[in-house]
Amino acid sequence: MQKPSIPKGTRDFSPEEMAKRNYIFNTIREVFHLYGFQQIETPAMENLSTLMGKYGEEGDKLLFKILNSGDCFAGISDEELMEKNPLRFAAKACEKGLRYDLTVPFARYVVQHRNEISFPFKRYQIQPVWRADRPQKGRYREFYQCDGDVVGSDSLINEVELIQIMDEVFHRFGIRVCIKMNNRKILSGIAEIIGEADKIVDITVAIDKLDKIGLDNVNEELRSKGLPEEAIERLQPIIMLQGSNQEKIATLKEVLSASETGLKGVAELDFILERISHTPIRAELELDLTLARGLNYYTGAIFEVKALDVQIGSITGGGRYDNLTGVFGMEGVSGVGFSFGADRIFDVLNQLDLYPEGSLKTTQLLFVNFGQKEEIHLLPLIAKVRKAGIRTELYPESTKMKKQMGYADAKKIPFVAIVGENEMAENKINLKNMLTGEQTLVTIEELIERF
Amino acid sequence: MQKPSIPKGTRDFSPEEMAKRNYIFNTIREVFHLYGFQQIETPAMENLSTLMGKYGEEGDKLLFKILNSGDCFAGISDEELMEKNPLRFAAKACEKGLRYDLTVPFARYVVQHRNEISFPFKRYQIQPVWRADRPQKGRYREFYQCDGDVVGSDSLINEVELIQIMDEVFHRFGIRVCIKMNNRKILSGIAEIIGEADKIVDITVAIDKLDKIGLDNVNEELRSKGLPEEAIERLQPIIMLQGSNQEKIATLKEVLSASETGLKGVAELDFILERISHTPIRAELELDLTLARGLNYYTGAIFEVKALDVQIGSITGGGRYDNLTGVFGMEGVSGVGFSFGADRIFDVLNQLDLYPEGSLKTTQLLFVNFGQKEEIHLLPLIAKVRKAGIRTELYPESTKMKKQMGYADAKKIPFVAIVGENEMAENKINLKNMLTGEQTLVTIEELIERF
Repeated sequence: MQKPSIPKGTRDFSPEEMAKRNYIFNTIREVFHLYGFQQIETPAMENLSTLMGKYGEEGDKLLFKILNSGDCFAGISDEELMEKNPLRFAAKACEKGLRYDLTVPFARYVVQHRNEISFPFKRYQIQPVWRADRPQKGRYREFYQCDGDVVGSDSLINEVELIQIMDEVFHRFGIRVCIKMNNRKILSGIAEIIGEADKIVDITVAIDKLDKIGLDNVNEELRSKGLPEEAIERLQPIIMLQGSNQEKIATLKEVLSASETGLKGVAELDFILERISHTPIRAELELDLTLARGLNYYTGAIFEVKALDVQIGSITGGGRYDNLTGVFGMEGVSGVGFSFGADRIFDVLNQLDLYPEGSLKTTQLLFVNFGQKEEIHLLPLIAKVRKAGIRTELYPESTKMKKQMGYADAKKIPFVAIVGENEMAENKINLKNMLTGEQTLVTIEELIERF
Repeated sequence: MQKPSIPKGTRDFSPEEMAKRNYIFNTIREVFHLYGFQQIETPAMENLSTLMGKYGEEGDKLLFKILNSGDCFAGISDEELMEKNPLRFAAKACEKGLRYDLTVPFARYVVQHRNEISFPFKRYQIQPVWRADRPQKGRYREFYQCDGDVVGSDSLINEVELIQIMDEVFHRFGIRVCIKMNNRKILSGIAEIIGEADKIVDITVAIDKLDKIGLDNVNEELRSKGLPEEAIERLQPIIMLQGSNQEKIATLKEVLSASETGLKGVAELDFILERISHTPIRAELELDLTLARGLNYYTGAIFEVKALDVQIGSITGGGRYDNLTGVFGMEGVSGVGFSFGADRIFDVLNQLDLYPEGSLKTTQLLFVNFGQKEEIHLLPLIAKVRKAGIRTELYPESTKMKKQMGYADAKKIPFVAIVGENEMAENKINLKNMLTGEQTLVTIEELIERF
């Protein structure tokens, strides 16, 4: 008999995990709605022509490809087949693949439905994606992404609102965070003024190490990457950039005064910080020049959220991009978006034990089943209790009390209602608090009142 | 430039469709929670060894199979390859497939997690499934299933609660329904007393036509299926079965008096109807002997829900089964379950226009953007409005009024807030009702009050 298992890198979600995940997604969903974002969903399977070539050569290999149903060998010659080249074979034998992220399907959606969409289009999407990555701790082959984007508007007010959304979501979770901000144009400006446009990644990587290895070693690393002394000299005020966001901006304005692009980046950042100052923000906001995620993709603002009380990578990230849909023949659709890291947020909430009471929607009350007569007595009572919105169960069988109490324990049901001969005669309910063991005799109305 | 499209038989869900689907799923979810059901999720991809052989030969062909990443030709000889037999090739080149329903993954889940589960296990699951069926109107290759099951309990109270759940869900939707009930044991009993156990499907199909073709033609059809006159004679009271559920049960008790199995089925039905009479049920309940869905699978109660005000197939169905998990080496797990037909419920709610106001979570209020100064004035006001839970947008750009109002129209936003020079000076908001065109000057507090 086969012993069942699931593919490596995939997960089952138990009732408790699902309740926690629903709490996370519902909280994010509510905040998105509050800001006028609308949900869409796209199919798990996309045409491979939509997906291929969008994630680099490596990405093409990491796509899960679906063998054509019917005759998968149609149109493949014997010679081609005997080549046994997986990618070339797949190109003919597979028309469809599983989505690899939510960005490409979103771009495809925007182009395909351009005539139904009223721009600016604020959409969010919460769906699983699949990657044939080597599974390892914290990295799965199936995982949920949770993206929000505004496309079709260049206004920086969108950036401001994204910051507000991040702030509100993590406030609701009770997670203290720092929202780090940067701007691609500032990074371009820095590369411009030191004349080393192609070294921008090396530079940010080196600057990022300042706290750990100290200034001398950072400069040494820059030298080892081939940066001339003059460029390193010019970089000093940027490496040592310190103080409040306003002080950093003042320094950058000076240092980047010769770069039009750089100054534009500073002005954008300045604008966003000014506007956000008119709203009640609880997160720390920090200008961080080492923030360079998705450098080839982002063209303006770059965001990242770090949890302050847990050691973990970024739990949310995003930025502004140009030309989302150019690859599908629709030019001029720029936007700004971000992605909540659901798995990491799940870990942070677990570590800090931040799930609010009641958020997990477990059963609140179990009625013990003593048999036929009691069942008939209880059915209308239970209907009343449920009508009051109390999540209630009747144990389906009149088995031993111990077994029924064990069920309540295992399911973490906080209250058990015991109605035997005596209680029936008095038309009362013996309500047992499973945590304290305390028992109280109440009427059905009093019971409902208690919850 | 490629014109993007999605695989045939799949769908994008637009914001409006998503809002409606969320309303449907959330309603079902809430009722499940009220009855102590817990959600689980399983991976989209299962090992093909889990899926193959579970849905018959045809089902094996309709599974979407995922080409092994890396070298899909590993372990395949040249001879095997040149056979070009799709199924045999897939057996070696594909380890994984997309789930075909939620029942087999659930059975696999129960076996795999048997030590963590406290039985009776009440689980629900709302996830997409994939079938390589020929797409046609109303039949998709990707569609959501929404299943609820109680396993590990033989008590008929579970059947009673499933009926209550169906009743409550459709009551909340405002859909008037008839819940049809039958019992596999009654059908077995009928076959037994007429000595034609293998003809039970032919018999139910024929009986089902009574209203349309009349008694003579039903009997003629039974004859043509090879039923002897004596059997047809015995079937007459069953074909003509009429009256209330209680009258039908009385007749069946008589007719089936010689069949132990048949009488057991009648007793089960009788018990369920008796218990349900102690709860407030709004749906019609009808004993329908022609109900035979999943005949090879169900062993006791059989359910089906029909909408009374729309011509459409069943919108929910289910029943009791034995031995859910035997195929995975775990015996003795029986249960009862059902499946809400999400796509059909969607169609019924659309046709009857039953979505309650507010259920679609659209933006409630749009602030017009007149420029820099106004933006700064509005940001703290909008934060206040959102804090009050009102779904609010600020148009991100200070473009023409007409464009901004057009956006509100397209997104069906019911109220627009206009704050120009004058309103700012007075610290008021000009609130426009987009339906009536009526405009009112209000303070921020009055505005919040209105929603």
